This record gives sequence, structure tokens and C-alpha cells, in this order.
Amino acid sequence: MEKIKNIKDTSIEVLGECNIKSPLCSKKVNYLSPDERVIVYSRKEEFDYHLKTLGEIPMFEKAGPQEKIFFDPKETVCGIVTCGGLCPGLNDVIQAVSITALKLYKVKKVLGFMYGYKGISSKSKYPPIELTEDSVKDVGDLCGTILGTSRGPQDPDDMIDTLLQYGVNILFVIGGDGTLKGGMALANRIKERDLKISVIGIPKTIDNDICWTSRSFGFITAVGEARTAVNSAHAEARAAYNGVGIVKLMGRESGFIATHVTLASSNVNFCLIPEVDFELEGENGLLMQLEKRLLRKHHAVIVVAEGAGQKYFDKEKLGKDLSGNQKMGDIGLLLKEKIKEYLTKRGIDHTVKYIDPSYIIRNQLADPSDSEFCLVLGQNAVHAAMTGRTNMAVGIINEHFVYIPIKMMIGKKKQVREEGELWKTVIAVTGQ
Amino acid sequence: MEKIKNIKDTSIEVLGECNIKSPLCSKKVNYLSPDERVIVYSRKEEFDYHLKTLGEIPMFEKAGPQEKIFFDPKETVCGIVTCGGLCPGLNDVIQAVSITALKLYKVKKVLGFMYGYKGISSKSKYPPIELTEDSVKDVGDLCGTILGTSRGPQDPDDMIDTLLQYGVNILFVIGGDGTLKGGMALANRIKERDLKISVIGIPKTIDNDICWTSRSFGFITAVGEARTAVNSAHAEARAAYNGVGIVKLMGRESGFIATHVTLASSNVNFCLIPEVDFELEGENGLLMQLEKRLLRKHHAVIVVAEGAGQKYFDKEKLGKDLSGNQKMGDIGLLLKEKIKEYLTKRGIDHTVKYIDPSYIIRNQLADPSDSEFCLVLGQNAVHAAMTGRTNMAVGIINEHFVYIPIKMMIGKKKQVREEGELWKTVIAVTGQ
Amino acid sequence: MEKIKNIKDTSIEVLGECNIKSPLCSKKVNYLSPDERVIVYSRKEEFDYHLKTLGEIPMFEKAGPQEKIFFDPKETVCGIVTCGGLCPGLNDVIQAVSITALKLYKVKKVLGFMYGYKGISSKSKYPPIELTEDSVKDVGDLCGTILGTSRGPQDPDDMIDTLLQYGVNILFVIGGDGTLKGGMALANRIKERDLKISVIGIPKTIDNDICWTSRSFGFITAVGEARTAVNSAHAEARAAYNGVGIVKLMGRESGFIATHVTLASSNVNFCLIPEVDFELEGENGLLMQLEKRLLRKHHAVIVVAEGAGQKYFDKEKLGKDLSGNQKMGDIGLLLKEKIKEYLTKRGIDHTVKYIDPSYIIRNQLADPSDSEFCLVLGQNAVHAAMTGRTNMAVGIINEHFVYIPIKMMIGKKKQVREEGELWKTVIAVTGQ
Amino acid sequence: MEKIKNIKDTSIEVLGECNIKSPLCSKKVNYLSPDERVIVYSRKEEFDYHLKTLGEIPMFEKAGPQEKIFFDPKETVCGIVTCGGLCPGLNDVIQAVSITALKLYKVKKVLGFMYGYKGISSKSKYPPIELTEDSVKDVGDLCGTILGTSRGPQDPDDMIDTLLQYGVNILFVIGGDGTLKGGMALANRIKERDLKISVIGIPKTIDNDICWTSRSFGFITAVGEARTAVNSAHAEARAAYNGVGIVKLMGRESGFIATHVTLASSNVNFCLIPEVDFELEGENGLLMQLEKRLLRKHHAVIVVAEGAGQKYFDKEKLGKDLSGNQKMGDIGLLLKEKIKEYLTKRGIDHTVKYIDPSYIIRNQLADPSDSEFCLVLGQNAVHAAMTGRTNMAVGIINEHFVYIPIKMMIGKKKQVREEGELWKTVIAVTGQ
Repeated sequence: MEKIKNIKDTSIEVLGECNIKSPLCSKKVNYLSPDERVIVYSRKEEFDYHLKTLGEIPMFEKAGPQEKIFFDPKETVCGIVTCGGLCPGLNDVIQAVSITALKLYKVKKVLGFMYGYKGISSKSKYPPIELTEDSVKDVGDLCGTILGTSRGPQDPDDMIDTLLQYGVNILFVIGGDGTLKGGMALANRIKERDLKISVIGIPKTIDNDICWTSRSFGFITAVGEARTAVNSAHAEARAAYNGVGIVKLMGRESGFIATHVTLASSNVNFCLIPEVDFELEGENGLLMQLEKRLLRKHHAVIVVAEGAGQKYFDKEKLGKDLSGNQKMGDIGLLLKEKIKEYLTKRGIDHTVKYIDPSYIIRNQLADPSDSEFCLVLGQNAVHAAMTGRTNMAVGIINEHFVYIPIKMMIGKKKQVREEGELWKTVIAVTGQ
Repeated sequence: MEKIKNIKDTSIEVLGECNIKSPLCSKKVNYLSPDERVIVYSRKEEFDYHLKTLGEIPMFEKAGPQEKIFFDPKETVCGIVTCGGLCPGLNDVIQAVSITALKLYKVKKVLGFMYGYKGISSKSKYPPIELTEDSVKDVGDLCGTILGTSRGPQDPDDMIDTLLQYGVNILFVIGGDGTLKGGMALANRIKERDLKISVIGIPKTIDNDICWTSRSFGFITAVGEARTAVNSAHAEARAAYNGVGIVKLMGRESGFIATHVTLASSNVNFCLIPEVDFELEGENGLLMQLEKRLLRKHHAVIVVAEGAGQKYFDKEKLGKDLSGNQKMGDIGLLLKEKIKEYLTKRGIDHTVKYIDPSYIIRNQLADPSDSEFCLVLGQNAVHAAMTGRTNMAVGIINEHFVYIPIKMMIGKKKQVREEGELWKTVIAVTGQ
Repeated sequence: MEKIKNIKDTSIEVLGECNIKSPLCSKKVNYLSPDERVIVYSRKEEFDYHLKTLGEIPMFEKAGPQEKIFFDPKETVCGIVTCGGLCPGLNDVIQAVSITALKLYKVKKVLGFMYGYKGISSKSKYPPIELTEDSVKDVGDLCGTILGTSRGPQDPDDMIDTLLQYGVNILFVIGGDGTLKGGMALANRIKERDLKISVIGIPKTIDNDICWTSRSFGFITAVGEARTAVNSAHAEARAAYNGVGIVKLMGRESGFIATHVTLASSNVNFCLIPEVDFELEGENGLLMQLEKRLLRKHHAVIVVAEGAGQKYFDKEKLGKDLSGNQKMGDIGLLLKEKIKEYLTKRGIDHTVKYIDPSYIIRNQLADPSDSEFCLVLGQNAVHAAMTGRTNMAVGIINEHFVYIPIKMMIGKKKQVREEGELWKTVIAVTGQ
Repeated sequence: MEKIKNIKDTSIEVLGECNIKSPLCSKKVNYLSPDERVIVYSRKEEFDYHLKTLGEIPMFEKAGPQEKIFFDPKETVCGIVTCGGLCPGLNDVIQAVSITALKLYKVKKVLGFMYGYKGISSKSKYPPIELTEDSVKDVGDLCGTILGTSRGPQDPDDMIDTLLQYGVNILFVIGGDGTLKGGMALANRIKERDLKISVIGIPKTIDNDICWTSRSFGFITAVGEARTAVNSAHAEARAAYNGVGIVKLMGRESGFIATHVTLASSNVNFCLIPEVDFELEGENGLLMQLEKRLLRKHHAVIVVAEGAGQKYFDKEKLGKDLSGNQKMGDIGLLLKEKIKEYLTKRGIDHTVKYIDPSYIIRNQLADPSDSEFCLVLGQNAVHAAMTGRTNMAVGIINEHFVYIPIKMMIGKKKQVREEGELWKTVIAVTGQ
């Protein structure tokens, strides 16, 4: 948690009362009391601040299996959809949700909708595929997503019609900010139409920038592979006299991958992220700092998140993408050019190597810690769904999995705080 | 955190008042107030229970840099020693401590004592080596420990004499339960002799079984490599008609590696740990359950922690090791034999393959998440030491690094609770 | 090639004349002339020796597609069977054979017989599975063999009956010495019964000890993973004062893995293989040499092939296995005990760590160079089969794939020559 | 070997007679007769063709230690220099040469010249570093080159002066075509000045495009990492409806990496290399073929070597680089744009992802098979040098290491033959 915020209502929407006994073998499972909560702030100063400001201690519902459930498994059809960019662990989550629903809750069927929300549209040319224990058995060994993906929303009513057509009672939406917004719109419309369909979000952000969850699946794997790219940049830089290696990493609004890879490697000299402004020119500017570093050590590595330094681009020229988002300038290429120009002007013989490993990073297999995270995340998503919870997503906070209303997670990105410990540690390590 | 316990005094011993301004560049570092605390229990029921029982909320000191320090860097000599078995990340911690002390605090010198506590003994044949920024630069690329290691304690007074001889003001001891005990004895003796030498523990346990820290370095890397062994066992099992793969993993008293690899892999059918008793014979015994699994699927994988099933060995026959600890029987071999015997008796054609990957696991390089963990752990150990804290170790709880009195960490192992969520998740996944 | 031998008749048995035009698109494929040959000896002294002795230059048939084939694809059913121990690349070979037969030659069907030759027996409880382009698409991502495996021969006539029952015209047998013997017996019996079924061997030996092929699939991958184990042993050895790391590797009769890992790592001090006798005791014995090394460097790594030093075991006590082969003593354990005993007697404080990584090694995924090797190997096996060749196997010699009569490959193992370059290089590197 | 050529004089230049007994322990080493040769052509039709055309069988000198050497080890100083682009295994070669010279031949000293030929120039600001057994012990764990590198030649006389200044008798030059040319110029000038300095080339080409050696170090490792990128592209392609993944790989004049990764992966649908012309437009053009593939399978992977399709660029606009070489257009980007344009025009909804993994590929650690190759390569370079051979490089042909006059290796690149087996296998696998 990087930021102190006020939080108000953390209670989860439900479709109705839970009257059905859970099929999870009673002897072997510890059911969770529905009253279980996890305290959001474990740092005393945050805790005290909130207690004082709000008059209460903010808490989220703890995730886990409950004794009574809402949906009758033998009449329950689950749907799964993956949206947005690829991320390590997608197939692990699909596997975890499917196996938990089929093997533990013994639901009737699990359907995978193809190619994101498009696959739930009535215009979709590709029907959902049935996911069975056998068909998902080995999918953790494949990168990408076996369900395919796409970007952008679809009309809620149109999607609801498809869900009704296939008898889907529960829809798991795996995706980022936009996808969760779409999930919320869908859940809201379902409520308006008074239908009993649960929509459960499973937050996916390789940048780890979704609010109220301290970890998102695939992030740790991504940092791991980013380190490989940093090591390559370092070797390139070190092999040349005055060699500079630049690695551009994911992170449009949040620089968590860039900061964490800086801490996971001892080879980064400059870490640039969207949250912390920097100058190219001037005494404390990157170029002069880089020159000093080169004169001292004759090599340097720069890690830059893609959203950093956007002030150096003309937004109007860049234009907007199909979803209406501002396009971003390629900060890695700009740095490369500016650095070459500057060092040439300064008469310093040099080499600049630029690496953009994004597609390789996002197509790694989940490392074991992410695999386990995906498993428990998927299980808890199913536990939530079976009790009729809806319009919520699963997160982790203070080492406990929790349920969070989707509306709290969207619209605002979690960011690295310039004044926070994480960034200070980066400063301490790089000396930048 | 698997267990609710009463905790009493979490305050940290100090050598004296902090009167020296920290050399960490003031503009760029957020100093921590010495009053910062981290709440131990974030789960509401545990929180409430402790509030009720103790009348207070248990908290640990939050780790981090402070504005005033105790030791004058230019007169400070740090010592580092690594003890006990190897573990991924040892060299990363050595690097983090050295670089933080030298580059951030600008201490006079860092010495590495060789081969564990033996190297601090006056009888040691190998003098300490000086660790410099250059000499530790690439040690993260080497597995093992560049300082060597050994087991067993040394006489505190003898060690103090060595520390005095080399002018060491701060000693970082990296090791497990026994090592921390040795560190406490040393700190206590230092206090009795009224010396101003700080002893800071950095808990090392590949089994993740040290109390009051939810994570220990190298553990996640170990689970990762254990998964490779499980996948091998699974391939062996699947390739044979009625193939059984057994993987024995570390864990004398605690089965965290075995449980987590079970969750990180989808291929484990039976997970056996020291904390949960099991029977070989009888209706619910392992052998009959295994037979059922084989008849259904024709292959099975068993993961067993080395401390599991010790009731099947004659302790007296096994004897004790040099440190006086009860020796353990090889449960992996015993399972192999019992299973072969049983299946042969039952007329079931079978193959049993037994894998013991322990030495390969503990000699992996730290994965990126462990590298980062080691870095911040090492930094916080130095922050603690420079303020004159002593007789304490660094841990992590609720996502925050904290300081913990050594005496709280030793003597008792953290264990997997049979009734806890972790084990229940294992049961759900394996169906055992 | 380690050894000079006389070779006589290298011609390949055929089922009949090739009258059918190959379906491989004529424009794009270079057909091989049936007269293409590969010279076995490229070293001048060997070449000259054979020319003089035999009066001719020994050559093998060059592998590759030919314009005319024997089997009519649309009536051809292929069978595949994998026998013996696991080896990296098995699934890659299965994939290559299946895809080549189905997609290039457009044969009617490919069947996978389950669990080795047992699966071709009439007593088999598990019918063959059909292999399709889709079903083998991703099998290269799985270790082990999707067809299962077993050891031991079956009655040729019984197997022929099964082949006839399923209409199999071509059987690919993937396995080692015993498997190839079984294949030859089968091909001979087929000939006696005047049937038109081709039997093509694909030599599988993780030890790389099959004659007349300079490389076998999986071997390079195996050496790679063996290096990981050696690095672990090295880290263990270096971390202890007078630490000794022992790695036992595959190699019952031939020490190729042990020798090559010694060359691929710079950390091996003693390499022991079945082909080169060694003594434990005496001036030049291992124990005294080890002591000298420890006194000089305080750590040592020993790599030992499982078949080395068998003279130290009582063969009668060990007995024979089910196939009637002499069982082997565990040379790794023996070394561990003898070394501990010796060093204790000599009053040298020490630690000995013993690693047996065999099952992990043989369950690696094929590395890219092995994947490519498996692909071309499998393709050439199909090219051979379609032309009605039989009773032969595919090998590689002087960088060309060739066809070799099975009878030349069996009965005798390729070995490391004590006087050869390979072993001399080992001696030079280890200084042993 | 892809190509049949005439070769004439393969004899190696020497500095003088070998009169000194080699210090390699005589008992343990098999000395090579100076008459040992390796036959270049092992394929019968090539062999016969050359015998007929040349009237003799072309042979190279076999590499290996000889009984008599030219240089007196105790007066010998070796120099090593690495030039050009990075490549996996550079540090392994440096290690092999250094250890062989120091430990086996016991030469006086080994010097590493820094940053390529620049470091041998009298204008160099960075003196050579001494390489010792200790300093090169662990360099195989580092990627890049510890000696640094640069491009371009230096004045031979100037370099000779530096060599004389440091008393260097033997210079090992590790580099590609340009570097070897520089080495030849140096050796020729040394001869003119009647000096006794040996220049030995160690061919380095990640593209494997140097003539007369069937393998160059780092190539197999490069193909391995290229496969990772191809798998990423495949996952991206498969996740999108009509997804296209493009991977640009090294290979300005020769497409060996592209072709071999196509064979090592089963996921490539189109492989484009400089040697084989292709069209974008028209019935058989890439665009229409790609469309067909998409309509059939909805995803496709294209692998393209950087030198392919250069006809689509305006050479004059591209200009020349500092060394006077024609600059190349970015064929990967061009393909991306052309494909997007075409598919958009055709009304096909699609996604194109472009990956350029070059810097990550060339900074991998050598895989074990390359490590061993580097070791033996380096050893043979030293064996050659010590006997006074000069103006030659070490290669491998028909599985034997050989000595080749530098003049034979330069000026012309080894290429994939459109009519050869390798390319035909690619065609068979991709169906392109």
C-alpha cells in the first residue's frame, strides 16, 4: 500500500440469501464466518489516522469458503472471460476457477467465452468452449490465454442476453481497469433487470496498479523477466566504452515494474517512472547526471516506464487510440536520441543500446509464486460467487485475500508515491 | 501468520541514545519516526482476541532509516557472518548489507568472517576478508555463500575478543534458529560486559519456519525449484502404468515448502508434512488411498517433507547428531519401500521413482522477488544497527518490515496449522 | 566417433521396389538420389586405415526424402512406441514423426501404442491412441512421453498379430539397445512371415552410448541439467571448509554425460567413468589425490558415472534385475562413505554432500538444439519408412543424418576411449 | 556445410620450426602427429566431385596438442582481444584461452586488451589487464565480455608497436569477418617486419555465417533464446482473433538463426531470410499467403532475419554507416506496416505484434553445449599458437576441430542455400 486514502463503504453486494449447504466436504474445510474481516491499515499511523477521521477501522471482507451458499451447484453454469493485454498467469487463473467450480463445488458446467467481451456479444462468430477438468489440466504450461482476448466494452444488455442464452449464473471477468468497469456496468444492469447472475472480477494488471490489492497476478513474474532484460542492457553497456543501456518497461501510469526491477537488480543507475517528474536538461537533468556517471564508471543503465517523460511529447500530434485514450510517445526512443545527441555534442565517444522486452515479459509462464497466487485467487473468486456475491473483485491486503467492491477498484490507478518508502529505496540504491 | 499467540513485550534493546545525524542525504530520504509501529494482527478476529486478552494491540517497531543514529559511521566497522545450511539469497543479503553500510552510511569497513561462528573464534585459521563495493558487486550471480558456513555455536567471550580485536561495532548474523540463539547469547554477554557492540540477526530459514516473520529469504526460490522436481516426478509417474513419483523436500518440523509446492503445482496428489499425522495402513491410510488413486488414474505424485512420518522410525536406533539433535529417518525411502511392498502384495504392477532434490534446491540463485526481498532486508538490518539497536532481528509482517527481539523468534518453530486455511487449501487441491 | 572399427555391410534392408510418386510437393523438395552416401571416417588416418584394410571406403546411406516411395500413403497406418527410461525429447520425436507422416505424406492414420512393447502385446489392457496434428501440437511442452513406457521384450508373433489387427504398415520404435534388439527380432520375424511391415528404429540413449551415431537426442539437454547439479555441488563444497561435493550421473557402461559435463563446467576436479579404471587407495588413488586438493584449495567436486568403480562391489551380493542384468552398486554412496572415513582418519575436518539428479535430468524439456535434432531425426525416420526401408535406424555421422542397419547398432556400447582426445581433454581440464 | 566450393591451399603459415618439448605432461596427453588431417567433404557426391575436379581430397589440419612447440612458455606473453558485437560465450572463450595458456602451458602472462582493437592502439587510454587463473575463474557466469569491445580496424604497425611494448608473442583475436580481416592484415605486416608474433583467430559470429566452420560459438544458445521470443509471438498471435506475431532476428546476410529457430519450434508459419527472395504482393506473395493462413487458423507467426526483403528499401535513402557498410531498413517494422495496411484494406479485423529480441539474445549465458564448445575451441587456439602457427583460425568440420588459414574464412559469408536440405526442411515444416 503506497497511499493513505479515505475509504468508506467496503460492503459487498449480494444476490440474495444463502440457504444451500456448501458441497465442500464438511469435515475437511474450515468454513469462514461471514463476519470475518481484514483490517486495511496495519501501519499504526495510518490506522490511527483513519480511526480518528472516520471514527471506524476500515476493513474488507475476508475471502474464503462459507457453509451456506446461494447457487445450487447442480444448476449452476459458470462463464469465464479474459480481456485486455496478456499477462503471466492468465491460464493458471482459468484453471483454478474451472477446477474449483467443477471439482470442489461440482457445478454443472464451465464455459469459456472467446476473445474477451466480444465473445459474449450476440455478434460473436465464435461460441464459448466448454472447460473441463481434463481440458484445463495442463494449461498452466502455456503462456497467453487459451480463451483469447480483445479490448473494449460491449453493450451490457447484449451480453446479458448471451449469458441467459447459455444459462450462465456466474461470470468471472479477468481483466484490468476497463474490464472491471465493463463488469460493473454489467452487474449494475443485471441488478436493474432483477436477474440472479453474479459478476466477479479478477483484477489483472501486469503493472500492479489496481487499487486496494497489494499484488496482482503475473507482476512478480514480469519483474523477473524484466531483470533479464536489465542484465542484457548492463552487459551491453559494460562491453562498450561509455556504453549506455536503456530498457523500456510497461507502466503507462504507474512505475511499479520499473521500481521493483531496480531493486531486484543491482545494475540500474537511473529509474524513470510516470509518477516522478524528471528533467533532461540542466544541472540535475538526466543528461548531465548520465555524463557524470559515464566519466566515473564508463557505463550506465537506464530503466524507464513507458508512461514516464510524456511531457516531452506533443500530445496532439500523438493523437488518441480507438478507445479514446491519449496515445503515448516512445520515451525509450526519445531518450536514445537525446542521449546520443547530447554525448556527441559533448564530444564523448559512446554507444547506446535500447531494449523493449514488453512482449517477451508478458508471455512468460507464471513463476511458482504467481502460480500459487493464481490458484488461491481463483478459488476465492469461486467461493465469493457461489455465495451470491456480485459486483466485486478479489484482492489481497495484509497477506489476506479479501473481497472488494468493483467500484472501489476502478477509475484511479495505484501509483508509486514520490514520498513513499519504495521510491526512497530506489533513490538509495541508484543514487540518482 | 498461521497461529494466534499471545505476545507481550515487543520492544527492542538499544545500546544508547542516538545523537549523530544520519549521513543519508536528508533531502531524499523519508526518515521514520522512532514511534512507527506495525500492527501484528490484521485479521479482525485475531485483533479483537488480542485486544480483549491483552488489553492492547500487539505491535512491532517498523523498520527503516532514522534521522539520528548511534554509531559514528567513520568509526564503525561492520562484521557479517553466515551460519548453518545454504539457502538461495545468502550472497544477496551479504551484498545488501555491505553496500548499504559502505555506500549509504559510509562506514569505515565491512568484514566478512569466514565459515560461520567458527570464523569469529580465536582458534580460526582463516582471518576475516574485507568486503568492498567492488568485491560484492556480482556476488548475487553466485549460489552458496562467499563467506562459507558451518554449524554450531562458539564461546561468546571468545567471539567478543575477536570482535574487539578487529574493532567490530556491529555484527550481522545470518542464520536460523541455532544461529539466532548464538547471536542472543553473544548480545547478552556483550551487555554484561557493558560493551557497545550491536548484534543484528537476519533470519535465514529455507523452510520459512521462523516465528514472527511471514516470509524468509530464499523460501520462494526454493518452492520454485521444488516445483521442477515435482514436475519430474509427475512425468515419471505418468510415463509408467501405475507409476508413483515421490519427492522428499526440506522441512524437519514445518512443511511449508511441501504445502506451497503443492499449491504451486497442479500435479501433487498426496502432501505429507510433520505437522499433520498420517497413517500408512488402514482404510484411510496412505497405501489404500494410493491404491484407489492408481486404479482410477494409473499414476500418482507424493510430496513429503523430511520430518513427516517420523513415528515410523525407531528414534533410539537413529541416534543423535553432533549437535545433540535427534536424527531423522529417511521418510522418502521408507515410503518407497512400503509402497512397493504393498502394491506387490496387492498384485498391482507398478513403478516407484524417488527424488531428493534438496541440495539442488538450496543452491539456486535467488529469484528476482527474493533478490529484492534480500536487498530491503539487508538495508533494514543496517538501519537498525546504525541506531544502536541490538539483540533483534528483521522480519516482515503485514507487508511491512519490522524489528523483532531475537528472544521472540527462537526456540519455537512456525508451523502449518492443521486447522488453518493453508492446509485446508492443500486438502481441497489434492483431495487427499 | 571415439573408436576405429572395421565395418562391413552397411546396406539397408528393403520391403520391395519403390513405384509410387512421393506426395511431397515436387517443386519444393530436393529429392535425394538413392545412391547418396556419407563417408564414415573423415579423419585422414582412419580413412586411410580403412581404405587399406577393407579396400573400400565405408559409407552409410544418406537420409532424406526420395522421389519414389514404397507405401501408398492413403493406405498407410503408422505406429509409434516408446520403450525404456525417460529421456528429454521423447515427445518431440513423437510429434515430428506424427506431423511428418500426417501432414507431409498424408498417411491415413498414426497410432501411439501405450507403455512400450507391452502395448503391442495382445494381452495389453490399453488400446493404442490415435495421434493427430492437433493432439501432438503442444506435446513438446511436456516432459516424459505421452505414450508411456515400459521395459522388456514381447513375443514378436504376438506383436505382429496386433500390428495386423490395427492395419499398421510401419512401426517406429523409439528406444535403446534392448528396444532396438526387440525391433530387429520383430523385423526378422516379419520377413520370415513375408509381411510388408517396416520397422524403423529411432535410437534413444540419454548416455549417448549407441554405436554409429555421434549424437542421440536428449543427450545435450541432459548435460545441461547435469551442469546445474555440478554447480550445486560446487557451491556446497565451496561453502564448507574442506567441502566435498559428489554428483552421480547416468552412465552404466559409458561416461559421456560425466565427461561432457566436466568440459561444460569449470568446477569439476575428479571425473570417474566406467571406461577408465581408478583406485581409491594408494599414492595415485582418489583418496590421497582428494586430500592433496583439499589441503591446497579446501574444496573439491567429484563427478561419477553410475557404472564407475563397480570393482568395489560384490557382484554376487548385488544380484541381477528382472531382465537378468547385473545390478550395480551405488558408487556415489560408496565414495561418500570412503571419503568420510578416510578424511576422518586423517584428522581433516570436512563435509561431504552427495547429489543424485538423475530423475530431474531425464525429465527436462528438450533444449532448442535437441528439439531441432528430434524434428529432423523424426522426419528422416518417416522418409526411410515410406520407401520401404526396414530393420534400420536413423543416426547422424559427420553432420549428416544416415540410415544404419539395426544389427550394427546393438550389442556393443559406444564408449569413451581412455586414449582418445575426449578423455585427454578431461584430464587436461581437471588435472586429475 | 551448405555449399560445394573449390578449395585450394589449406596449409597453415608457421613462424618457424618447433624445437621445444611441450610442457603438457607426456604420460597423459596423446600428441597429434603434425600430419593429421580432416577430410572436408564427407558426403560422397561432394567428395567425388572434388577428387575429380581437383585431383585431390581437400583436407584441413586437425587441431590438437603437439609434442614439439615453437614458443618457450616461460618467455611467452599472450594477448587476447574481443571485437565487434556481443555473442554468448565470449567470456567462456577468454577463460578457456587464459586457463589453457597459464595452467597447461604455463606461459609467463596473459594480457587482455580492452575494447577491441582500439585497446591495442597506442592512443588507447586503457592499458591491458592481466588475466589470471583466479580472475577468469567465474567469468563464464557473466554475459557480455569482460574485455569490452568495439568495432573497426586500427593501423597494423601501431598495433605491432603496442604488442612489442608489452612483449606479446601471441595474439588471440576473437571476432567476425572484419576482425579476422584485421587479424590477417596484422599477421601479414608482422611477417613483413620479420617478427615472431603469432596471430590466431577465433571466429565469432552469432549468425553462424563464417565459411569453413560448421558451427560458431554462441549460435546454439542464440537459437535457444530466439525460440523464447518465437513462443511469445505465438502466444500473442493465438490470443488475438487473427493475431500476427512477427519476430525479427539477427542475420544480415545469412538466415541461419531464423531457419534453425523455425526447426526448433513448431510455431513458425513463415520464415524469411536474406538468401531467399520473397514477394509481398501477388498470388504467392506473403500478404495473400498470410491472409489464407489467418482465414484457416486465425493466427500466424512470421520469423524474419534482419537482412531479408531489403529490396523493399531505398538504399540511397538509408545511407551507409561509419564503416562504410550499406545501412539496412527495418524489415520487421515494414512487414508490420504492410500487413496492417493489407489486412485493413481486406476488411480483416486483426492484431499485429512485433518483437525484436536481438539484444536479449546476444546477452544470454552460453548454454552447456556452447560452454563446452568454447572450452575446446579455446584450447585448440592455444595449441595452434604454441606451435608457432599464425594467420589462421580454429574451426570445426565433420565433428573435428581444424586449423584454417584466415584468408579462406573472410570476404564471403556462409549462407543458407535455397536448394539445400536445410531450407527444404524449413519449407516442409512451415508449408510456406
